Amino acid sequence: MKIPLILVLISAFALPLNANAQDSPSPEAIAAAEAAFSTPDELIRDKAMSAALDAAQAAIDAGENAQAAAGDALAAVYAPFVNGDFILTSFLFLVGGFLVFFMATGFAMLESGLVRSKNVTMQLTKNISLFGLASIFYYLIGYNLMYPLGTWMVDGVLSGVWGPGVLESVGVSAADADDIGYASTGSDFFFQLMFCAATASIVSGALAERIKLWPFLIFVVLLTSVIYPLQASWKWGGGFLDEMGFLDFAGSTVVHSVGGWAALVGAIILGPRIGKYKDGKTVPIPGSSLALATLGTFILWLGWFGFNGGSQLAMGTVSDVADVSRIFANTNTAAAGGAIAALLLSQIMYKKPDLTMILNGALAGLVSITAEPLTPTLGSATLIGAVGGVIVVLAVPLLDRLKIDDVVGAIPVHLFAGIWGTIAVVFTNSDASLGTQLYSILVVGIFTVVASAIVWYALKLTVGIRVSEDNELAGLDVTELGMEAYPDFSKSS
Amino acid sequence: MKIPLILVLISAFALPLNANAQDSPSPEAIAAAEAAFSTPDELIRDKAMSAALDAAQAAIDAGENAQAAAGDALAAVYAPFVNGDFILTSFLFLVGGFLVFFMATGFAMLESGLVRSKNVTMQLTKNISLFGLASIFYYLIGYNLMYPLGTWMVDGVLSGVWGPGVLESVGVSAADADDIGYASTGSDFFFQLMFCAATASIVSGALAERIKLWPFLIFVVLLTSVIYPLQASWKWGGGFLDEMGFLDFAGSTVVHSVGGWAALVGAIILGPRIGKYKDGKTVPIPGSSLALATLGTFILWLGWFGFNGGSQLAMGTVSDVADVSRIFANTNTAAAGGAIAALLLSQIMYKKPDLTMILNGALAGLVSITAEPLTPTLGSATLIGAVGGVIVVLAVPLLDRLKIDDVVGAIPVHLFAGIWGTIAVVFTNSDASLGTQLYSILVVGIFTVVASAIVWYALKLTVGIRVSEDNELAGLDVTELGMEAYPDFSKSS
Amino acid sequence: MKIPLILVLISAFALPLNANAQDSPSPEAIAAAEAAFSTPDELIRDKAMSAALDAAQAAIDAGENAQAAAGDALAAVYAPFVNGDFILTSFLFLVGGFLVFFMATGFAMLESGLVRSKNVTMQLTKNISLFGLASIFYYLIGYNLMYPLGTWMVDGVLSGVWGPGVLESVGVSAADADDIGYASTGSDFFFQLMFCAATASIVSGALAERIKLWPFLIFVVLLTSVIYPLQASWKWGGGFLDEMGFLDFAGSTVVHSVGGWAALVGAIILGPRIGKYKDGKTVPIPGSSLALATLGTFILWLGWFGFNGGSQLAMGTVSDVADVSRIFANTNTAAAGGAIAALLLSQIMYKKPDLTMILNGALAGLVSITAEPLTPTLGSATLIGAVGGVIVVLAVPLLDRLKIDDVVGAIPVHLFAGIWGTIAVVFTNSDASLGTQLYSILVVGIFTVVASAIVWYALKLTVGIRVSEDNELAGLDVTELGMEAYPDFSKSS
Repeated sequence: MKIPLILVLISAFALPLNANAQDSPSPEAIAAAEAAFSTPDELIRDKAMSAALDAAQAAIDAGENAQAAAGDALAAVYAPFVNGDFILTSFLFLVGGFLVFFMATGFAMLESGLVRSKNVTMQLTKNISLFGLASIFYYLIGYNLMYPLGTWMVDGVLSGVWGPGVLESVGVSAADADDIGYASTGSDFFFQLMFCAATASIVSGALAERIKLWPFLIFVVLLTSVIYPLQASWKWGGGFLDEMGFLDFAGSTVVHSVGGWAALVGAIILGPRIGKYKDGKTVPIPGSSLALATLGTFILWLGWFGFNGGSQLAMGTVSDVADVSRIFANTNTAAAGGAIAALLLSQIMYKKPDLTMILNGALAGLVSITAEPLTPTLGSATLIGAVGGVIVVLAVPLLDRLKIDDVVGAIPVHLFAGIWGTIAVVFTNSDASLGTQLYSILVVGIFTVVASAIVWYALKLTVGIRVSEDNELAGLDVTELGMEAYPDFSKSS
Repeated sequence: MKIPLILVLISAFALPLNANAQDSPSPEAIAAAEAAFSTPDELIRDKAMSAALDAAQAAIDAGENAQAAAGDALAAVYAPFVNGDFILTSFLFLVGGFLVFFMATGFAMLESGLVRSKNVTMQLTKNISLFGLASIFYYLIGYNLMYPLGTWMVDGVLSGVWGPGVLESVGVSAADADDIGYASTGSDFFFQLMFCAATASIVSGALAERIKLWPFLIFVVLLTSVIYPLQASWKWGGGFLDEMGFLDFAGSTVVHSVGGWAALVGAIILGPRIGKYKDGKTVPIPGSSLALATLGTFILWLGWFGFNGGSQLAMGTVSDVADVSRIFANTNTAAAGGAIAALLLSQIMYKKPDLTMILNGALAGLVSITAEPLTPTLGSATLIGAVGGVIVVLAVPLLDRLKIDDVVGAIPVHLFAGIWGTIAVVFTNSDASLGTQLYSILVVGIFTVVASAIVWYALKLTVGIRVSEDNELAGLDVTELGMEAYPDFSKSS
Repeated sequence: MKIPLILVLISAFALPLNANAQDSPSPEAIAAAEAAFSTPDELIRDKAMSAALDAAQAAIDAGENAQAAAGDALAAVYAPFVNGDFILTSFLFLVGGFLVFFMATGFAMLESGLVRSKNVTMQLTKNISLFGLASIFYYLIGYNLMYPLGTWMVDGVLSGVWGPGVLESVGVSAADADDIGYASTGSDFFFQLMFCAATASIVSGALAERIKLWPFLIFVVLLTSVIYPLQASWKWGGGFLDEMGFLDFAGSTVVHSVGGWAALVGAIILGPRIGKYKDGKTVPIPGSSLALATLGTFILWLGWFGFNGGSQLAMGTVSDVADVSRIFANTNTAAAGGAIAALLLSQIMYKKPDLTMILNGALAGLVSITAEPLTPTLGSATLIGAVGGVIVVLAVPLLDRLKIDDVVGAIPVHLFAGIWGTIAVVFTNSDASLGTQLYSILVVGIFTVVASAIVWYALKLTVGIRVSEDNELAGLDVTELGMEAYPDFSKSS
C-alpha cells in the first residue's frame, strides 16, 4: 500500500536528507524513489473498492444499509493491523510458555526413567506436586518479589486472592494495558512462572530415591516463593546485577545454576543412597527405563526452544523475529554439540557409548547456550554446547569420587554447565565482562547455597528429610505411598 | 508511524471532544497532542527513504527499472500489514488445535497407564481408532449439524466427498473468505474437530478392560457424528441454550459433561469388571504404569492451554491476546489447585498422598475452569480448580459404593467437575445466571443420557457390548487382538 | 480504520473503474461505497485521541515533555504494524520446526517400542545420536548444498565455523534481511534442518536390532550432509526437477521415499535378523512396548502438522493462512483415513484388528498426503490416506516374502506410501503431470539407491555393518553398549 507513502515523501523531502548523505544516491535514484512513492498500489485499491462495491450492491439487493455494508467490507479488507508487536510478543510468551511448561513433563519422565522402579511413583508424585506448588506460590509471593518496582505486579498479596487487580482486567484496552510497548501481563506471568517451576524440577532429580515427600515440597515452596524470585530480581527485575552489566539471556545462572546449587547443598546434607558407595567404590545404580529417560530428554530439548526463544522478550519486528530464529537454531545446535561430544568422549573413555551420558550431554549443551543463545554463530554454539557435554562426562565420576550422590546428573548438567555457559558469554558477546560474569555467578551461588543450606538444615532438624533405611531399601513407592508404579511386572532383583 | 494521524487529528478536532469531557485535558495537553500528531516519525521515514534510495541506486547501477525497485523496497519496509486479526485468530486455532489434538495422546497414555498390562493394546487400539473415526465422521456429518444455519459448512454431505466447496478454496482471497471478520474455515474446523474427538476419548477410559472394540467404535461414530454435534449446536451453534444466556466458555458442559454422561450410562449398562466388587468390598485394581498415566496427565494439561485459550476465538487485538493470556494463566492455576487439593486431601484421608488422585485432581481442576477460564482472578481460579480436586477425591469412592466401575476416574473428572465448573461461572461472571446454568446442565444431561442409553442398549441387544468372561479374565489383548503390549516382560500374577 | 481510505477513494475514483466493470455495481452502490470511505472510524480516532490527551496531561502534571509523551501514546495505540508477513512466516517456520523436531522423539519412541527390550538402549542411542549429527552436518555442508545458488547460505564452510556471516546478523534490520519478502534465514534453516533429520530417522527403524552403531552413524553423516541435500536441491533448491514441474509439497518423495530407499538398500545389504525367516516361514518378532509405539505414532502425527503446514512457506496473508488451515485439516484427515483403512483391512484379512498395522496405517496416510496436502478436499484427503493404509497392510507381508526384514515397517510407510502420495498429486492438482511425477520418483530413487548402496557396501567391506551373531542373539544393549534399557524387569524368555 503506497498511499500513505505519498505523505511520507512529502515530509521526507521537506527536510534535508542528511541521514542518507553517505549513501549519496544519484539524482536518478531520488527521482525513481519519488515516483515510487507517488504510484498508487492499484492491486490493494482495486481489492478494497471491489469489496466495498460488492458489499454495497449485495446490501442494496437485500434492502439493507448499503453504506454500512460497504464500510464493513472496506474495514475487513483494508484495516491496518495495530499493536501487532504487543500481540505477537504476548503470543511468543504463550507459545514459549507452554513449551517450557512441557519441560515439567520432560523432567518427570527423565527422572522417573533414571530412578529404580521401586521409586518411580514417588518421583512422579514429587514432580507433579512441585509444579502445582510452584504455580500457586509464584503468583502469591514470587512474582511480586521478582519485579518489585514495576507495574508488573500480580497483587495477590496486597489485595487478597479473591481481590480485583490480578493480571490485567478482562478485555483490557490498548490504552489501559500495563505496558503497551511490551506484552500482556498474563503472558509475561505465564512465561516467567514456568522458569520458576523449572528451577524446582532441577532439584527433585538430584535428591531422588531417599528424600521424604513433604520436606522436599516445603523446600519447593520456599525456593519458588522466595529464593528463586529474589535472586532473579537482581538480574531480571532490574536489580544490582543487571545494573552492573551481568548478562544471562535465559538463565544459565539465574535458573540452572540456582537449581543446581540447591540440589548440590541438598545432596550433601541428605547424603548418598544406601549402597551407592561401598568399600571406596562407586556402585552403578541403573535407572528403570532408558526409554522414559530419553523421552524426557527430547521433551526438555523441545521445551528449550521456548525457554531460550521466548527470552528474546519481543517478536514484533523483523529484527526480533530474526533474533528468535537465531536463538532456535543455536539452541538446537548446542544440544547437538553436547550430545555428540558426550557420545564421542564416552566412546573414547569407556570404549562404549553411554546413553545416559549422551542424554545429559544434550541437556548440558542446552544449559551452556542458555546464558547467550543469540550472539554465537552456529559453529560457536556447537562448540559451547560440546564443552557442556564434555563437562558432564568428566564431572559425573568426579562427584562420585566426592561421594555426592546425584541420581540423575542434575548437578553437572545444570550447575557446572550453567557456570560454563555464563562464562562463555564473553566469547561471543562483546558487551560481557568476565569479571562481572564471575562476580554474578559467585553472588548468586553464595546466596543460593546459604539460603538452601538454612532451609535444608532446618528441615533436617525438625521434620527430618530422609526416609528410614528400611523404607529406602524396600523402595519409597510401597513404603511411603503404598502404590507401585509398575505392579504388573515382576522385578529382577 | 505518525503520518496518518495527522488526518486523525484533523477529523478529531473537527468534532467536539465529548467522549473525553470527563478527562478534561488542559489546553496545554491538547496542544501537545496536536503537535504530536503533526510530527513525522523520522525513524520510519528515514528507513523507508533509505531503502527506496538504495534499491533505486542498485537498480540504476544494474541497468534495471529504478522506480519499480524503489517501490518494492518501500513496500517491503513500509507495507502496513492487513487482515492481521483474521490471520492471527486462524493461527490461534491451528496452534490451539494441535495442542488439543495432542490431548488424544494424553488420553491414550493416561488410560493405557491405568489399565492392567493385559488390556493395554486394546486401550491403545480404541484410542487411535476413535480419533480416526471422529476425524472422519465429524466432517461428514457432525460439523454440519453443529453449525446448521451459518455459512460455516463443510458441505461434504451435500456435494459429495470428492466435490468442491469443502472448506474454503485454495488460495482464497480476503474478499472471498467465508468470514473475514473471524478466521479461516479450515482452522475453525480443525479446532472444533478436536473438541469432538476429546469427548469420545473421555468415554473410552471409563469403559476400559471389558467392552468389545467394535460396539465401542460404533458408539463413537454416533457420538461424534450426531450426539455431540447436536447438543453442541444448542450452545456453540447459536441454538436455544445460547440464546437463553447459557455460558460455557470452552465446554465444561458441552464437552466434558457430555463425555462423562455417555461414560456413566455406558458404565452402568456394561457393569463392573469381574472382581472389582467382591463381598460388598471394592477391590483396587492398580494400573500397569503410573509413569504413562502421569505422562498422559501432563500432556492433557498442556493440551488444555489450547482447549481453553483457543476458545477465546480471537487474537487480533490487545484485548483478545490479553484475554488469551489470562486464560492460559488461569487454566494452569486451576490445574495446580486441583492437584494440590487432591494431594492434601488424600494425605488427610488416607495418610498417604495418592498419585492417581493427584493426577485426576489436576484434570478435575482443568475441567472445572473450562466453563469460565477468563473472568476469574488467579486466586479464584485456584479455588475453583481446588474444589474440582476435592470432588474427585470424594467421588471416586462414592461411585465404587454404587458399584459403578469407572476404570480411569473419567466420571468424577469430566462429569462431576464439569457440572461444578459450569455452576462456578456464576461466582466470577456477572452475566451468568444460576438458573440458566443449571437448566442447561440438565437439558444437555438428559439428552445425552437418553441418546447414549438408546445406543448402548441397542448395541447390547444386537451385537453385544461385553467380552466373554474368559476373555476378560485372560485379558483383551491376547484374546480379542492376539497381541500383547509388553510381550518381553513376565507378569507378576 | 477508515481514514486512509479517503485517500484510496480519491485515487480510486480519479481512475476509471475498469477492473470492476463486469460486476456493474449500481450507482447507489457506488454512492454507498463512496460514503463509507468518507466516514471516519470514530472508535479508533477517539481511542487514539484519548490516549494522546491522557499521556500529554500526565506529562504536563509531571513536568515532562508533553508532546513526546503524546506522540509515544499515539504510536502505541495506533502504530500500523509493518513486515507482518515476514514475521509471521518466520514464526510459522519456528512453530512448524519445533513440531518437526518433536518427530525425532516420535521416531525414537515408535522404534524403541517396536524393537525387543534387549535392543532398546541401542535404538534410543541411534535416534538421539543421528539427530545430533544431522544438526551439525546439515549446517556444515547440507544446507549449502541444498540451496546452492541463492543467498540462503549458511556459509560455515567458506568462512569457517567461528566466522561471521552464519545466519543473519544479530538484530538484522528489514533493509538488511536476506529476503524481506520471505522469512528470516534462521527460521528457514531451522525448519529445513528438521526435514533432513527426519530422513535419517526413517532409516534407523528399518535396520534395527542388528546394525552396528558407528557404521550406521557414518551413513547418517553422509545421508544428511550429501545424499539428502543434493537430491532435495533438485526440487526445493530450484533444480532441474523443479524446473520440469515436479510437485512435492512437503516431501513424499524428497524426504520419505529417500529415507525409504536408503532403508531398503540397507535392509537388503544387511540381511534379516537371525530367526526372522525360518523354514520358509516368517516368524513374528513382537516389539517390547506397544504403548511407546503408539506414543511415537501420535507424536509423529502431531509433528506432521508442522511438516506439511509449515511447507506452505508463508503465513502473512488471508490466502496463506487459509491454505495452512486446509493443510492442517487435510493432514489430519489423511492420517485418520490411513488408520481406519488399516483397522478395517486387518480385521477383514486377519479377523482381528492389528494395532501395529493401525499405527503404520496412520503414518502411511500422513506420508501419502505429504506430496499434496493443500489441493485435496477433506474427502479426497481421506481416500488418499486410506490407500496409504491399505498399501501398508498389503506390503508388510510382501516384504517378508522377499525376506527383506524391516523392523518397524519403515519401507512400506515411507517408501511405498511416499511413491503413492507423489503419484496421487495428479488427482487433485491440475498442475501436476503424471509423467513428471513418475520421472522424478525414478530419478530420486535411482540416485538414492545407488548412493546408498555405495556407502553401505563401502562400510560393509571396511568396518563391517553387522554385529556378531552372539551379540545379536544376546541383544545389542548388553553386548554393544553394556547398558540395559529396563534392568529392573525380568524378561519373559
